Amino acid sequence: MNNRNIMSKPFDLLNESLGKEILVVLKGNVQVRGTLKAFDIHMNLNLENANELIDGEMKTNYGKVLLRGDSVILVSP
Amino acid sequence: MNNRNIMSKPFDLLNESLGKEILVVLKGNVQVRGTLKAFDIHMNLNLENANELIDGEMKTNYGKVLLRGDSVILVSP
Amino acid sequence: MNNRNIMSKPFDLLNESLGKEILVVLKGNVQVRGTLKAFDIHMNLNLENANELIDGEMKTNYGKVLLRGDSVILVSP
Amino acid sequence: MNNRNIMSKPFDLLNESLGKEILVVLKGNVQVRGTLKAFDIHMNLNLENANELIDGEMKTNYGKVLLRGDSVILVSP
Amino acid sequence: MNNRNIMSKPFDLLNESLGKEILVVLKGNVQVRGTLKAFDIHMNLNLENANELIDGEMKTNYGKVLLRGDSVILVSP
Amino acid sequence: MNNRNIMSKPFDLLNESLGKEILVVLKGNVQVRGTLKAFDIHMNLNLENANELIDGEMKTNYGKVLLRGDSVILVSP
Amino acid sequence: MNNRNIMSKPFDLLNESLGKEILVVLKGNVQVRGTLKAFDIHMNLNLENANELIDGEMKTNYGKVLLRGDSVILVSP
Repeated sequence: MNNRNIMSKPFDLLNESLGKEILVVLKGNVQVRGTLKAFDIHMNLNLENANELIDGEMKTNYGKVLLRGDSVILVSP
Repeated sequence: MNNRNIMSKPFDLLNESLGKEILVVLKGNVQVRGTLKAFDIHMNLNLENANELIDGEMKTNYGKVLLRGDSVILVSP
Repeated sequence: MNNRNIMSKPFDLLNESLGKEILVVLKGNVQVRGTLKAFDIHMNLNLENANELIDGEMKTNYGKVLLRGDSVILVSP
Repeated sequence: MNNRNIMSKPFDLLNESLGKEILVVLKGNVQVRGTLKAFDIHMNLNLENANELIDGEMKTNYGKVLLRGDSVILVSP
Repeated sequence: MNNRNIMSKPFDLLNESLGKEILVVLKGNVQVRGTLKAFDIHMNLNLENANELIDGEMKTNYGKVLLRGDSVILVSP
Repeated sequence: MNNRNIMSKPFDLLNESLGKEILVVLKGNVQVRGTLKAFDIHMNLNLENANELIDGEMKTNYGKVLLRGDSVILVSP
Repeated sequence: MNNRNIMSKPFDLLNESLGKEILVVLKGNVQVRGTLKAFDIHMNLNLENANELIDGEMKTNYGKVLLRGDSVILVSP
């Protein structure tokens, strides 16, 4: 059995999360929560109903945001 | 149904924002608000009537600015 | 004897760890522990039952997470 | 109507600024003001009559400077 | 005499160190000591019996670790 | 008139500075002054009679130095 | 006269320094002094009799070290 053939790919998690709420941790200690509308292979992310979080509390209501992929550290649905 | 085929692309948000006001969060804790006039695939952004913000308050009135794409963390219309 | 030919490759450790718990140290002093479900050649990692750790204590229960490869410093099974 | 076809490119702002004074914000909290004499596609910039600014005050008179593109955050005419 | 032809290559030190203990200094002030089991051209390193060091004292016993090459500053056998 | 055709290139400043004293500002708040002996397209710089400066005062006399291009922020003749 | 044709290349300084003692300033405020044994085009460096310096004082005796090129800021023979 070859694990590589049957294993899923990391980006599958983004595909499954389209239309659902995700949390994104960015460089510079920025956290954004919102609904994933689009992504590309650079991990650029397009969110709606997005809020910036500080210590888990909502800080700024952004509405729509584009997050640059190379600033992303962690994405969690 | 293939989500990838019907999903929009992250840069669509920039295209929709041409001629409209956006907020840009840059590395080094710099925030700039202005009207998006142009962008390219590197996410280099050209704004007019641009102001730098500190804690949500206007700090510097730049007029026109070119923001380098690889300094961008977040763009919000 | 040519050491290069007989030596294993660094990514073999990820392949062996599929389905098992790993600890990931990320840039920005972030540590995440969880079950490795997928990875790619950029070292993007997909974990389940993932928790963020602060000083070895569980801080945030993420469930599923996608960790961006270029934020990774260290992976340990 | 296709916005992409009629929109200007971000680097147009550099082309328009040749021979004029610009402000450049660089990584590491460095600001330089001077007359733009040359640039290339990497955003390397060549200024004359250039001064470094601290809190908007002139600090160092550099005369001519070459600014490395990947240190640039923001350019404003 | 051409120095370039007779000189060894920097990675020879990694090849010589296979199966031996090395010290690795990583970005973010992380130091790891362990037995080198594998490496690749990106300087990704696979160690066994690996320990994280703080001020020269053992802090965390990792067992096996994968260290990401672009986090490496220094390797010493 | 096409500004791009008649404009000089940013690296011309390095070519003009060969054999002359330059100031180099590097990442990590390092400043080096010395005579430019060589450069390449990566902006790697070779200086002679080089001194590190702290607050404009000479700190370390290096003699010859090689400065890595991607650490360079600013070069001034 | 074309300066570019007669000028030396920055890496010539490394070639001349083979077998001699050099000082290397790395990112993260690390300084290492030792005898240069090998280098490659990425500026990866192989030193022998290498010591880490803190404020010009010897701190750690590494013996042999491999220094990763993209951590290098400055090399001085």
